[in-house]
Amino acid sequence: MKSIKIKPIGVVRNKAGRRRHDEWGDVISEIVIDPEYTEALYRIDEFSHIYVLYYAHKVEERFVMKIHPTRNPLYPLVGAFATRTQNRPNPIALTICELISKRENVLVIKGLDALDSSPVIDIKPYSPRYGVDGVRLPDWMTKLMKKTK
Amino acid sequence: MKSIKIKPIGVVRNKAGRRRHDEWGDVISEIVIDPEYTEALYRIDEFSHIYVLYYAHKVEERFVMKIHPTRNPLYPLVGAFATRTQNRPNPIALTICELISKRENVLVIKGLDALDSSPVIDIKPYSPRYGVDGVRLPDWMTKLMKKTK
Repeated sequence: MKSIKIKPIGVVRNKAGRRRHDEWGDVISEIVIDPEYTEALYRIDEFSHIYVLYYAHKVEERFVMKIHPTRNPLYPLVGAFATRTQNRPNPIALTICELISKRENVLVIKGLDALDSSPVIDIKPYSPRYGVDGVRLPDWMTKLMKKTK
Repeated sequence: MKSIKIKPIGVVRNKAGRRRHDEWGDVISEIVIDPEYTEALYRIDEFSHIYVLYYAHKVEERFVMKIHPTRNPLYPLVGAFATRTQNRPNPIALTICELISKRENVLVIKGLDALDSSPVIDIKPYSPRYGVDGVRLPDWMTKLMKKTK
């Protein structure tokens, strides 16, 4: 299949350094959007939360076929697409963040789990309209959710 | 900023044709994953829902800075990043779908709003863990949600 070329729309700025997967909840980051797109942010701050799609550019090991979620052997070995590991064919991460403020082309957000300098490839508004009812989860995910709450 | 090269992991197959934004809920599609990644789907079917990230390859007009949501002038003009329009700098679409079944490298899903042949760039499990409380929405989105329910 033909490759797709993506042009980053902005970049992540934070001082969080590297952290464990469950230590990002309180991290404040800025997303500095390319000034050519400033107008495309118009009224985004009427949403309390946004989806941030970013490229995990510092992932060393690009892809692992099966993985223990959060690298913890207490959880079963499952396919990479059944987890949110960044070791996936395209290391595109998707995180729902609180949008704290916007000024010009800069979004201040809370809870983004991205390293400083990560390229941002899209921003979308979060709305529960796109949520779902009747969700069924694997046991390992139920355990993981209880542990990291 | 440097471009990022994405290699599709699979392709969408359906017979839905073109539809309005609110006419995709019952559409059944297949995602045919590249057989080299079959093992990366291991146990994904323990999730009832998945996120599908696909490339809206048939979007003619690549990017509009501001847009009336769903192209309806009853809604205010807002920035592209404040909507889910496909006319965005990178036309990457994100949809939560019901995972009906899996056989080998094929996922059967319900509710994907993608045209036949769309390249799929990632699959992630859906979990309410990544949902949020205390969501605040613009008036136009509240109206839109009521209308399309």
